[in-house]
Parts: sequence; structure tokens; C-alpha cells
Amino acid sequence: MKNSNTSFKIVDNGSITSPKGFLASGICTGVKENEQLDLALIYCKKKAVAAGVFTQNNAMAAPVIISKEILKRQSLKAIIINSGNANACTGKRGMEDAETIQKTTAAFLDIDSTEVAIASTGVIGVPLPMDNIIEGIPEAAKQLSKKGGKAAAQGIMTTDTINKEIAVEIELDGKIATIAGIAKGSGMIHPNMATMLGFITTDIVISPSYFQAILREITEGTFNMVTVDGDTSTNDSVIAMANGESGNREMNENHPQKDMFVQALQYVCEYLAKSIAKDGEGASKFIEVEAHGFITVSDARKAAKTIAGSNLVKTAIFGEDGNWGRMICSLGYSGVPFDMEGVKLNLSDGQEKNVKVLENGLPLEYDEELVTTILKNQSVRIIVEANNGSSSATAWGCDLTYDYIKINGSYRS
Amino acid sequence: MKNSNTSFKIVDNGSITSPKGFLASGICTGVKENEQLDLALIYCKKKAVAAGVFTQNNAMAAPVIISKEILKRQSLKAIIINSGNANACTGKRGMEDAETIQKTTAAFLDIDSTEVAIASTGVIGVPLPMDNIIEGIPEAAKQLSKKGGKAAAQGIMTTDTINKEIAVEIELDGKIATIAGIAKGSGMIHPNMATMLGFITTDIVISPSYFQAILREITEGTFNMVTVDGDTSTNDSVIAMANGESGNREMNENHPQKDMFVQALQYVCEYLAKSIAKDGEGASKFIEVEAHGFITVSDARKAAKTIAGSNLVKTAIFGEDGNWGRMICSLGYSGVPFDMEGVKLNLSDGQEKNVKVLENGLPLEYDEELVTTILKNQSVRIIVEANNGSSSATAWGCDLTYDYIKINGSYRS
Repeated sequence: MKNSNTSFKIVDNGSITSPKGFLASGICTGVKENEQLDLALIYCKKKAVAAGVFTQNNAMAAPVIISKEILKRQSLKAIIINSGNANACTGKRGMEDAETIQKTTAAFLDIDSTEVAIASTGVIGVPLPMDNIIEGIPEAAKQLSKKGGKAAAQGIMTTDTINKEIAVEIELDGKIATIAGIAKGSGMIHPNMATMLGFITTDIVISPSYFQAILREITEGTFNMVTVDGDTSTNDSVIAMANGESGNREMNENHPQKDMFVQALQYVCEYLAKSIAKDGEGASKFIEVEAHGFITVSDARKAAKTIAGSNLVKTAIFGEDGNWGRMICSLGYSGVPFDMEGVKLNLSDGQEKNVKVLENGLPLEYDEELVTTILKNQSVRIIVEANNGSSSATAWGCDLTYDYIKINGSYRS
Repeated sequence: MKNSNTSFKIVDNGSITSPKGFLASGICTGVKENEQLDLALIYCKKKAVAAGVFTQNNAMAAPVIISKEILKRQSLKAIIINSGNANACTGKRGMEDAETIQKTTAAFLDIDSTEVAIASTGVIGVPLPMDNIIEGIPEAAKQLSKKGGKAAAQGIMTTDTINKEIAVEIELDGKIATIAGIAKGSGMIHPNMATMLGFITTDIVISPSYFQAILREITEGTFNMVTVDGDTSTNDSVIAMANGESGNREMNENHPQKDMFVQALQYVCEYLAKSIAKDGEGASKFIEVEAHGFITVSDARKAAKTIAGSNLVKTAIFGEDGNWGRMICSLGYSGVPFDMEGVKLNLSDGQEKNVKVLENGLPLEYDEELVTTILKNQSVRIIVEANNGSSSATAWGCDLTYDYIKINGSYRS
């Protein structure tokens, strides 16, 4: 399928192993219940240029501390990820466990432990069930394959209900290059890096410093624009690997096809970010908030995220209630400068239905039936326009439902 | 009743009219359904020294704009408050309506309109039903009485389930002085001024600049430490009046009994703030978060508020689940500096039951049964101690429940 207005192609059944030279696996070690997959491995034989963006949570988990350090070398051959236990608030023992996982993985792959990044997600404050994981590592290494992408996507899930994966192709310097990614949500999701796990693989040749810079920049406008519950996790990481097997001329900020590459990577990250919002804990509706006309991009992002993160907006959307007052109220407390007299607000289903409810800061008479039709949709778009500048941003979230309370009022995550 | 360790006395059945010289009323004008009281008036014949603290929401409602301006004069004789309609996002018409209410009230009380502050709470973006309110004003003026305090407390309620009122007495310079207050919540409640309506009356003699300064300072540690849903409203106001009828020497920062006065005013504001948290929309449990050992008071406040405001903490408490990982995680993303290795966490019922679950940043073995007993209590205290300084703060909130979703998923507030 060729995406309209773009120069990249979405790969059918694309996965983290779609780029040349990447293998993956996902296995069950018994850390999670019901024989779910809980250990994922991503590997490429050729040393990849690597980049990473990590949580800003001050109670950073052991695997994040280690992977941040490893990523300073800007190269990787493998990422090992366990789900079901976050190895967070586990002190010295947690650090030792994380290092043991890293070293064991390196040993079974016959690579250096500095070439292995690690990530964990799940319950906080419980020591890792190391027996399960250490026994699982050789099995995960053995099962590495081109077909293992989907299993890896499943192996990183916690309360997620669907696996999140995507791959796109672009033509760079006459060579086909592929960019792929997997991610997991779906609680403790809120801006400030990454607030989830995301892994990107690609076979392009790229400059390490450019890779890091562009990953950070794109993360700001994609993964960091997702909010499910306002809680920024201890473990959030996005790690990207580029093994260079596509053989293009090195991608950097001066490459003539840079824009095409950025567009494709942006698409992958945005797709994953939106998938996380859609699969937010207990979500029944996907909410997109577009903010236009603000002074800076940072203002527009803050405005969009604040509206998308408001419990009152989220419950209104759940209730299919066109309570735009709550949207304007949350814009008001976002701390972003704007003139109320210039504010417009539209509600839309993201397709052809669109109702203007506020203009020049004042309520309009509008077709209530059409608003109800829009809000009955599974996807709702809130478009707020200020008249103070030319910066825009989009945030993604979901409604706040009885099921969110059910999941988090009884589930020990 | 004499409060232990304090020098003030709680007045039995105290209300906003307990201080000398204050009258109040609360009437039904038909703006709210089911014949609920929806218009409240507070009045004192002798011009009162006045102070006010207002919402920082950029989409400030018309009555807030007007009252902020009026309060610059630091004197008042009356406050008129309507509930059921916030007169927010109503533009020029909203400003005109607010001024009409102010002038009509002044006319019927035979005072100057610059001596009348106004406040509104309720639905956003709908023009005020002016006929009801204008017809109600003479009735509210007529019903002003010493007994009208409770009716005024009821007249300012929206989704509140109980009226919130308190009065305390102190002896200043040999004279009895009284400080009283009423407040309303209970949704759109989150720090950043006031996030609710609060009205304070007192008969003490006080310097206007000191009154404003101390009201702001106390608000920071009381009303602003309440979080129900993270949404800072367009209408939040705390307005205080001191008519000087108790005849003490002027209270100011050099008064020898200043501490006693501050303690009493602090008690009134804290009582009202806690009442708002307890009556949070859909709340089944009251949550107190104490933060100790931080570098600055501002850090301690931010830490306490972030924990109390976390949807994951709130749902855990609702589920009676000792998921302290969520508490530490939210401390982590609060942005406050602390060393994880120095963190202690206790869960308590606020009485004699207390369990230490974390020390030196590491989980402890603890009595799970005792934690369950604590969490089954209607009031839960989370005590987090850092080892980075000597500043403390307390925040108040409530759990996040099915009823919150029900109230806000269908109720047009």
C-alpha cells in the first residue's frame, strides 16, 4: 500500500524484523500469567548505529540506568526486554540483576555485553524472577528468526490488548531501506519522554549523532504527545538501531533525501504513539487534540497535551457529551499564553463531520445532533485554534472509563 | 470545644455569620434544578478590609475579572454568589451580566457597586439566566440574617454533597474575635489558586496589606494543596472580609498575637480545603499525602500534590491496593529533586496504624494484612520522606472511582 502524499510505502504485515539483517523472538518464561510471552529479543549481526531516549522520572529503573550508559557508545547488536516486572525501586540487587541479564544475553549471542541494551516493564518494587529470565535467555536466542517480529511485539506487552508494530519502506540513493518499530503501552502513559517502551529498527546507513538528534526530535512530537493517565513511568525508553545493510549513502542532515527519511521515521513513531493511545487502559475512544495558532511549538504541544490529559475532558468524551467548556477550561490552565477573544474550537470525527462550537472566544449556536453523531464515533478530534501565532501540534489520548478504574483499582501493575 | 494544643476554640454550629456584624442568606432562583438554593449573599454593614486570591486559569470567568479589580481597593461590604452557571466563556455579554448583578446587589443593599464582589460557579459557556438572578437579588437582600449562614453555604454548592462551613474564636488583646468560612468543591479541583470558591469572614481589625499577604500565604498551603481531578477551574476565588467589629489592636506582622491569628485562619482554610477533598466528585476515600525531608517547601508541596493527584495512586487507593510502586513512580515524575536511596514510605490510617513499606529507597517485607486494614479505612495517609532537606508539606485528595466517571461522563457541569 502506497501512502498518499508521501514517498514511503507501508509494508504488509511489517514487523521489527522487516529491515534487512534483523532477527527477533518472543518467548514465555512464566513471569506473566497464562503462558503469555514475556521475554523479547531483537538482534542484528552487523553492529548497528544506535540511539535512545529515556524517561525523565527521577526514580529511574535499573535497566534504564544501564541502557542510558550503553547508548552513550551509539552502537548496539541486541536489545533484551522482559515484561511483567519493571525491575524498578529494586536498588543494588536490581542493578546486579539487570547486569546479569545483559551479560547472559551477550554470552549466548557471543557478543560483547556493551553491545546489549535492556528494558523491563511491569510491576514495580519486586525483585526480578531471575531464574525464569536466565533460563529463558538461551531459548530466546535460539528462537531468533525473521518471523519472530510479532512474537517480540507480544513479548513486551503488559496491559496492552493488541500488539503494536509497523514497517515502512523508502528508496534512498536507489536502494530500498526499511524502518520498523514496536511499542507497548498502556498505563502510566504521559509525556516526558517516552512513557512507554518503543523499539525502532532500520537497515539504513546513518550518522550516529544525526540518528540520536532526529530520534529525540521526533520523539518530542510523537511518543511524548501521548497521554493515557498522566503518569510518567520509571521505565520508559525508546531505543533505535540502524545496521546500515541497505547500503545508501550515509544519512545525515545534509543528505538530499533527508526529508523523506524524516517523514518515514516520523510516520513509524506517530503510528506507534497513536496505537498506544488507542489501546490506553480501559479506553473506549481515541482522542486527537490539534492545537493551532500558538506562539511556539512548545506552547501548542502543551495546549494540546493539557486538553487531551484532562480527566474532565476524558470523561466528557466517554459520556459522548459535547462539554466544550471543559476543553477551554483546560486550555486555560495549561499555562500557555493566548487571547481568549481569538479562540476557535471545532469538534470533528476526523473525517467529514465537523462542528464549530466556539469562535472569537464565544459559544456559537450549533447543531447538537451533529455533535452527538461526532461524539458517538470511536475517534474524536478536538481542534483548538488560537490567534496568537503560527505554531501547531497534535496530542493523542483516550477517554477515561469505568474500565480504567476496574483495571487500576484491582490490577497490580 | 477547645482544640488541643491550640489557642483557638471551634464554634459550635459555626457559620459565615458567626463573626460580629455579618449577615448572610441563600435562596432558590430556579437556576439549579429541584429547588436547590443557588444564590448566596454575604453582607456586613461596616465596610470590611478585604483580600482575595483568584484562579490562574487564562480563561478567567467574568465574575473573577470583576472581583479581582474590585479587590484592588481592599475593601468590601458584600459578596454575591450564584451557583449552577459559571458565567465563563461568555464574552462581552458575560461581563455585562456580571456588572448588572453587581450593580443590582449594590442598589438593593444601598451601597456602592465598588463595595460588592461577585462569584459564579457551574456550567461554562452558557449565558447567565439573568431573569432568575435579578429577581432573586432583592429576595436575597431581604432574607439577610444572622441565621442565614448555612443557607449561604448551601447556595454556593454545585456537585457538592455536603455544605462546608466552620468558625473559630480567638482572644486578641482581651477581645473575642471570630474567623469563619464557607467553601464549595468538588470537581475541577486542582492546585493553582484556589480551584474552588471559598469565603472568609472575620470581625478582627487588620491591616489591608497584611490581610492580603497572609491570605495568599495560607491559601498556598491549604486551598492550593487540594487536588480532586487535576483540573484548575476558570472561576476559582477565595475572598475574605474583616469588618473590625471585635475591636482588637490592628493585626499586622508586628502584632504580638500574630501567630495565634495565623494559626486560627490556617485552621479555617485547612478545614475547608480538607472538606473539599473529602467531598471530591465520586470520592469514597480521603487521601492525605505528607511529604517530608525535601530541600524547599515548594519541592515538598509539589511532591505531595503530584502523588495525591496521580490517577494510578487514586485508583489503587480506591481498590484498597497497597501499590506503593505507583506512589514512588509519581514522586519520581514530580520533577522534584531527591535521592532515591534516601526515600522512606509509610502507609497509615492517620491514627495508630502505620506500616513502613520502603526504606533507603528499597522495598521492605511488611505485614500485608495490616496494610489491607489501613487501606480499608475511609481515610488513608501516605507519608513519604526524602533525605535531602528539612521542608515538609501536606496535600489532600480523594480516590478515583466509578462514581467520578458516572458524575462526569453524564453530568453537564
